[in-house]
Formats: sequence, structure tokens, C-alpha cells
Amino acid sequence: MKIIIVGGVAGGMSAATRLRRLDESAEIIVFERGHYVSFANCGLPYFVGGIIRDRGDLLLQTPESLGARFALDVRVGTEVVQIDRKAQTVTVRDLLTDETSVEHYDRLVLAAGASARSNASKDSTVPTHTLRTVDDVDHITAVLASVAAASAVVIGGGFIGLEAVENLVHRGVHVTLVQRGPQIFTPLDPEMAAPVLDRLRERGVDVRLNATVTGTSALGIMLSDGSTVPADLVIDASGVRPDVTLAAQAGLRIGESGGIWVDGTQATSDPHIFAVGDGVEKTDAVSGSGTLVTMAGLANRHGRSVADSIAGTPGQAAPALGTSIVAIFGLTVALVGWSEKRLVEAGLAHRIAHTHPANHAGYFPGAEGMSIKLLIDAESDAILGAQIVGGSGVDKRIDVLAVAMAAGLSASALTRLELAYAPQYASAKDPINQLGYVASNLAEGTSVNLQWHELAAARAHGAVLVDVRSAGEFAAGSIPDALNVSLDDLRARLDELPRVPLIVHCQVGQRGHTAARILTQNGFDVRNLDGGYRTWLAGTSSLVVSPIAERVLV
Amino acid sequence: MKIIIVGGVAGGMSAATRLRRLDESAEIIVFERGHYVSFANCGLPYFVGGIIRDRGDLLLQTPESLGARFALDVRVGTEVVQIDRKAQTVTVRDLLTDETSVEHYDRLVLAAGASARSNASKDSTVPTHTLRTVDDVDHITAVLASVAAASAVVIGGGFIGLEAVENLVHRGVHVTLVQRGPQIFTPLDPEMAAPVLDRLRERGVDVRLNATVTGTSALGIMLSDGSTVPADLVIDASGVRPDVTLAAQAGLRIGESGGIWVDGTQATSDPHIFAVGDGVEKTDAVSGSGTLVTMAGLANRHGRSVADSIAGTPGQAAPALGTSIVAIFGLTVALVGWSEKRLVEAGLAHRIAHTHPANHAGYFPGAEGMSIKLLIDAESDAILGAQIVGGSGVDKRIDVLAVAMAAGLSASALTRLELAYAPQYASAKDPINQLGYVASNLAEGTSVNLQWHELAAARAHGAVLVDVRSAGEFAAGSIPDALNVSLDDLRARLDELPRVPLIVHCQVGQRGHTAARILTQNGFDVRNLDGGYRTWLAGTSSLVVSPIAERVLV
Repeated sequence: MKIIIVGGVAGGMSAATRLRRLDESAEIIVFERGHYVSFANCGLPYFVGGIIRDRGDLLLQTPESLGARFALDVRVGTEVVQIDRKAQTVTVRDLLTDETSVEHYDRLVLAAGASARSNASKDSTVPTHTLRTVDDVDHITAVLASVAAASAVVIGGGFIGLEAVENLVHRGVHVTLVQRGPQIFTPLDPEMAAPVLDRLRERGVDVRLNATVTGTSALGIMLSDGSTVPADLVIDASGVRPDVTLAAQAGLRIGESGGIWVDGTQATSDPHIFAVGDGVEKTDAVSGSGTLVTMAGLANRHGRSVADSIAGTPGQAAPALGTSIVAIFGLTVALVGWSEKRLVEAGLAHRIAHTHPANHAGYFPGAEGMSIKLLIDAESDAILGAQIVGGSGVDKRIDVLAVAMAAGLSASALTRLELAYAPQYASAKDPINQLGYVASNLAEGTSVNLQWHELAAARAHGAVLVDVRSAGEFAAGSIPDALNVSLDDLRARLDELPRVPLIVHCQVGQRGHTAARILTQNGFDVRNLDGGYRTWLAGTSSLVVSPIAERVLV
Repeated sequence: MKIIIVGGVAGGMSAATRLRRLDESAEIIVFERGHYVSFANCGLPYFVGGIIRDRGDLLLQTPESLGARFALDVRVGTEVVQIDRKAQTVTVRDLLTDETSVEHYDRLVLAAGASARSNASKDSTVPTHTLRTVDDVDHITAVLASVAAASAVVIGGGFIGLEAVENLVHRGVHVTLVQRGPQIFTPLDPEMAAPVLDRLRERGVDVRLNATVTGTSALGIMLSDGSTVPADLVIDASGVRPDVTLAAQAGLRIGESGGIWVDGTQATSDPHIFAVGDGVEKTDAVSGSGTLVTMAGLANRHGRSVADSIAGTPGQAAPALGTSIVAIFGLTVALVGWSEKRLVEAGLAHRIAHTHPANHAGYFPGAEGMSIKLLIDAESDAILGAQIVGGSGVDKRIDVLAVAMAAGLSASALTRLELAYAPQYASAKDPINQLGYVASNLAEGTSVNLQWHELAAARAHGAVLVDVRSAGEFAAGSIPDALNVSLDDLRARLDELPRVPLIVHCQVGQRGHTAARILTQNGFDVRNLDGGYRTWLAGTSSLVVSPIAERVLV
């Protein structure tokens, strides 16, 4: 059997090596248009920043090492330019000599990935690069090495954009981050993204929201807000789109999302052709529809599945959750599943829980805070998504939530998870258990909450806001026109409260819950402001800078 | 409704506060025989070590603060000495005045915990303490403050013993650790405990295996090995047993494990009496039988359940996995479910996978290693247990496995978990996914492995061992009398291999797997030595010091 694989990074190479382990006798050829295979694409920004010092560390394998160990025929600098499905052949161009040749296949694997969706001005005279290949980082580091006190413009505040910003700043480069829309890092909801924007600005990044690049002048890069910012370099991290040219030309089915359609075994609409990686449509775990998720983990996993399919033991792909994580100046930002924005747009009834726990026991030195947002199906109590922003331990909690979501555990079932506890690592009531307690209180009606973006409307309709924090906390900063009755005084001061709908809040939501329980049992109509003062503050600060927050108003 | 709670730490206090939130009108009295309630019992060793500097940090709540916030009547220094189930009363002794009184209850909650199972010599003239209460640490720190260059004996190398050792060493105390059996930290299997012993000895701890304390002399503590070791202090961390005196006297059902029997709602055999915490029998997640798991997380969770039960909305407790973790001199040791020892003893057919991954991408600076052992049901592919020892990221992986196990995911399903990846946090193939790949290869028969303790017998029966590492690795240390044929040369050197059963191995198991695949497809009968040279080395080193390893020989 002769197998041709187009693309030699994550998905393609996982398919190739697994195939060899399953079938010693197969002929396996990998065509890669770039100069490198199996490179550490997720490490590229960190080589730019000098965190990864040795360029060789990015190159995990070579055609030679793959030949020796896995008997693979790996050809770099070689592009597959056409598929003849009837003849089962591909036309291959050697990018050095420009010569073409034709190769027969029994099975073909498309793993060409995605290509940049550029928002940069086409006529820029400033060097403009994406950050996707080893060649990209070679060019970027060459530019940076050639100028002192360099300036750069980064277009797009998504995963790669944030990593590019951090690494350029780490190198001493002055960075302007240009974001097309009103919110940085749009996979998050606005109140969760607020700390990211704060952190960028604290570290001296010039963040331009609602801006695009319009051109180049002698002074630098011109933006849509009319300003010109200095730049020795532009990094275009606007995003990617699936590279489906070859598949589309061959008449393979393209999914609604724009990626190559595959079934659960990674087969395309042609049973002799499989596809995997960033170019392929995945099935969304929440909606069951086609979706694009460009994560290395999925590419690797599905690459392995392709090999199983070709070897005759096909599996069935699990739907994609979109679990992802990014570090930005000491903050960890992680998410899984759907955001509130997306649920509102889709009209899916949901509940929300915000918490602000510490990563480990507060009495043990070094505890770091995090903010968690959980999205819950209002009918089934299923976990629909989560977002976490904070310090140590964020990565652990998003993984726990991703597993719970994949396994179909309800939000209330998070109370029952038995997580490892010693005071350096967690709390006896882990942040995940706490989140479950909040969720189960919501599910059983023991608690009724109100979101930060619902507060103004509720007060406009006559609700009174009661801040149950201490007088000292209240004095240090509070929501305008709130009453202050501290929780420990509440039972004694019930007579002071008006018999109208009340909204209670504390700093993070926990004392608010206790206050709400006291008030409810004393006959008040009460809701707890979800996530307390802290979430309200983040949300309203995002409103100031980010009209996108209005989209989630319900 | 009048509720009396016996014990005011984790389980009791979780019950009390939740009860108040559910029922403002209930009368809730908490009797605690100690001087403190809601103290950070898991922080006590770290106060001894000076890691937690402020004694006040250990005291999370006071009777006053609990009275103000939750309207609880909390009485410390007060012991419940008798239950009259017919009259629904308890007899209470004030430990200061020795006066007794009788209190009626509508519902009674027993949360008195466990008491020390002392292995210390009764007639010791050296101060001997357990490490369970604030009073204990006050006494211990007083002794340590009174002597320069202090010495201590710690009895028992379990969770508390290890924490005591680390903290005493951190304070500059010379420590002898006395372990009754041949293996330190017995919840682990011997090859997984080997690095713990190594680390203890590297840090200067005098570890005495197969030893007990037999008495005291003018020179110090006498041990069963005939030696006498200096000691200004003995910390007895031999373990605990459920404190069931009160329950047993009242005729409540005691479980086979020795803990108070409760149903899934935490009700005892008397429907007016509930029980929670270390004194209570849990249901084991693997066997379904009664078991003892003395973890704060379960106590808190079940305390909350007691409140729900009393308030009329009973839940059903999830079985206990025994997820647990301990830090020892920079190593993190974590486990969940059953060990190999326990599975062998119970005669449960199982598969085993050992891996040695890094916590995050190897190309990103600062990667730390860990060793993972997964126990798998040979019939159902269910996860039966896991053990992890290493650096950063161990806590995350044990939690992910605990959730997978609780959710009933199979070991092979670990391949499909979509975990958050950026190079600082994980690998694109996370250690958990890798473990799944190994497990699924075992399940589908793509790989057949052999454990370190099965190697000698297999070789005695004629199997030949082939080390597929490089010549350099082989020269640096190898298993005696192994052939060395490096993986990349294997296809060319097949003729050199004898046509007898082969066992292949590499450093950690991954190249061994590829080698086994090549050999199998070339007609050889081959097994891969699970976990490679590294697991074999740890296992055989544990055999030298720890005859317990022989128990797992199958």
C-alpha cells in the first residue's frame, strides 16, 4: 500500500509515524512545501522572544531522522499542486527546481493546515510577517537584530497575537497592538478579557482597539484612527483560514465552516482521501455542527486516527471542545466550550457562575487568585463552557473542566469530584468543587443570581442594591448608590431594608450568597450579583473600553 | 428543629454552615472537645516548619465569627460523652469544669474524626506528639524552640509523616524516620516509592526501614534494629483510626472497615443521627465495599451533604476514589484509586502502563519530568488507579485522571481528552493523552508489555532482552546481559536476533514500542518492558531495600 501525506507538521507526521508502527510494509511519502517538518510551531513566538534560545530546539525531527526511525520518505520544499482522484495520483512540484512529477497513491492524507487571513495593508513597505513557520521567525529575528530600540506593530490580539506581543516586549521591542474590534482576545467574554487588557497596558503595550492598519508612511504604520505608529516590523496575527485549495480543486466536500469535510474516521467525501489538522472541519461539542478549531492537540490526535482508519481499525472522533490556553505577562488565560456571547447569539438558554478563588489554601504562602466563569445549560445543567483568567493553577482547572465536559458531567456534579488536596496544590474545597456548589445552588434554586450587565436594568426597574461587605471594603470602592449593610449585621438590620426586589453583593459572591439566603428566608425577593464587586468592576470597565459588552446584554 | 453537631473542624463545620444557609430558624449547636474550630489541620506541619509563619493563619474561624455570620452556637472545650438515642439527648462534659449537662436533639451529626493509632512506645520519656491539633503544634514548636540543633524521630512515612519530616528538616532539625515495613509511603507501589526514599536520603533524613520504636534510653530512642537514635522529640505519624467510641456505645452500626456505617445520604443506622468525616466508612469506587479514606475534601463534601439530608433534600454520595497528594522535598507524589499491590491481593485482572513524560513541551525551558503508573481493568478497560511522582504538573494530571475515573471513562478514552496546550503548560500530546495511547495499544493488542518484576522470570524461561537505546545510553548503564541494537539500526539487523521470545526496552518505553512493532511484524514474539530502563531501575532498587516488592510478583 502506498500512502501519500501532504504536510509534515503535527497532523501529517502523527499519521505517518503511527502508520509505520501499524504497517511495516507500507510505502509512506510525506510532501512538505516548507523547509522543515515536525517543527515546534507553538514554540515559534518564544524563539522570537529569546525564551527558547537554541533554534535547533524548534526542529524536533528531520527528514533523515524520520527516515532512519520510521522508514518514511520525507520530501521538504515540495508542494502537491493537484489531485487526480480518478487516477489516484498527485502532481508534485519541487519548489527549488520547479519541476513537476506525478505520484500514485492508494490512500492520500491532506494535512496542509491553514493559511494566514491577512488584515495587514498589502502595500506596506515595512517588513510584514506571519508567525507560522521557521522561515517567519528567521525573518523576524533578522529584522530585530538589525535595529536598535526596535518598534513593532502586531495585528490581532488572539492567541498568536498575544504571544507575539509578550515575546517582543521581552526582547525590548516597543509594541503597538492593533485590534480590529473593541475587545482584546475575543474568545473570552468582555468581563473576563478586561484583566488581559489591563495587563497589556501595565506592561507598556500600546493597545489600539477598534483599529485597523490602513497603510504605511515614512513615519511608520498608519491606523484607521488617523494616527501613525512607528514600526520596524509588522507581525500579522489576524488569524488563519483553512487551506482548502487543493481539496476544493479536487472536488472534495467543503464543510459549512469552510474547512474540509470529514467523517468521524477522518475520511473526506472521497474514501481514498483522508484529511486532518487546521484545514479540516471539526464537530462542535456543544452544537454538534461543523466548526473550526486550530489546535495542535486535535491535529495530533486526528493524525493518529487517520493512521488507524487507513490500517483498517477506524475509530470515531470525539467532538471538539476547543480547549485552549495562552500565557500573557504572567497571566494565564484558558477556555473551553462556548462563551456567553456565543450562547446569546445562538439563543441557548443558560445559567452563569462567576467565582474568584485562590489556586490553593489561603493559609499557605503564595496563593494566587483566579477568576472563573462557567456557562451552564439552563435545562440540562450540562457544562457548555468555561473561561479562567489568573495565575498558577489555571491550567489545571481548565483541564478538569474540559474532562468533565467531555465526559458529560453536569455542572452540579462538579461538587462531587474528588480532587487532590494538600495546601500547596488546592483547597479542601477545590475551586472546581466551589464552582459546582454555586452551580448546584443555581440548579436547585437555592440561589438566584444576576449578571453584572443586568444590574443597571434591574435597578432602573426599582431593585435596590445592598453591599454586604464590611464598611472598610465599602469605603475602599463600591458600586454607586448601593446600601451598605455588612453580612454579620444583616440579621439585626433587616428592618432597615425596603420591601422591594433586592440585589445583594459582596466582593466575590460568597458572602452575597449567605446574605441572600438570610434575606430570602425572611421573605425578601433577592438576587445575588454573580461574581460580586470584582466581576462587576471588570465588566463595567470592559463596557467603557469595549462596546462589545453590550452584545451580551439580555 | 434543633441540630447538635459533634466536632467542629472540616465535616462538622461544613454541615453547620450549610445548614444555616438552608434554614435560618434551626437551632444549631456545635460541640468541639478541642480549643479550636475550623482550623487548618492540613497546614499544621507547615507551621511547625515555619513555612506558615503566623499561627493566626491556622485559625480560619472562631466561635465568635461563626456566631456572628452563621448564628451558630459553637462550644469549644466541650466533649459529648454519651448519646441516648431513645430520648434523643446527648450528655456533654465541659472539659474545663468537668461539669456535665444534657442536651436534646432533633438531629445529631457525628463529626468527631479519627484518633491516632500510636506505634510509639508508651513509656517514652522523650516528648511524643501526634500532629493533628493546634495544641500538638504548640507543644512541638515549644520543644524545638527550647533546644539548639534539635533531633527528632518521626514514626511512619505516610502523608503526615512525610510532611513532618520535610518541615522538621526545613527547621534545621536532624530527623530519623522510622518505618515499620520495608517501604516508605505504602499507598504507592514499590517502584513508584523508590524516588521518594531516594529524595529523603539525599536530603539527609536517616530512614530506618523495617524498624519500630522499642523504648527510650538516656541516649535517645531505641529501635527494633538494636540501634539508639538521638531525639529531643518524637512525632508519631503512625496513622489514625476512626473515632467510633461514641457511636459504638450508642449501638450505631459500625462498618467492616471500622468506621461508622452511613448510607448514601450520610445517615447512620439511626435515621436521626448522621455522621461525616474521618470517623465514617466510605464506599470504595473500585470495589464498592466499605473503606476508610481520611481526606479533608471528602469530609467537607459529605458535611455539606449532611446538611442537605437534614434539610430534606438528600443527595447520594459518590464513591470515594482516595485521590491524594503530598509534597516531599520538591517531589510531588499523588495517587488515586487502587495500587498494583492491592489489585494483586484482591486477584483483580489488570493491565499496567508506566510512562515518564515531561510536564510540558521539551523545547520550552524548564520542563520537569514525572513518572506515571496507570492501573487498568483487564476486562473492561476501566481506570482502576494511578500513581504519579515528579515535579510541576503532577497535581494537574492526577486531577484529570481522578475526574476521568469518576466519570467512568476508559483508559483508552484518555487519548480523546482535549486538554489545554501551550508549551509552558503541556505538550500537544499531553502526558494524559500519551498514557491513553499506551493503554489503547495494550487494549487492542498493538502492544504487549512486561513489568519490571516479571523480567527475571521471563529471562529464566529463555526470553532474550534487547536494549534498543543508542550505544551511548547503553554504555552509561544497562540491564545486565542485554543485547544492544539501537532502534534506528533495528530493521537492518533483524538477522542478528535469535528466534526466541524477545523482550525489548528503551529508556522510558516509547522507542521500545516502535521496536516491538517492527519486530512483531517481522514475525518475532516480543514484549515491551513497561516504563523502560527507568522503571526497571526504580523497581529493582526498591527490591534491594524493600522486600515488599516481591508481593507484586505475579
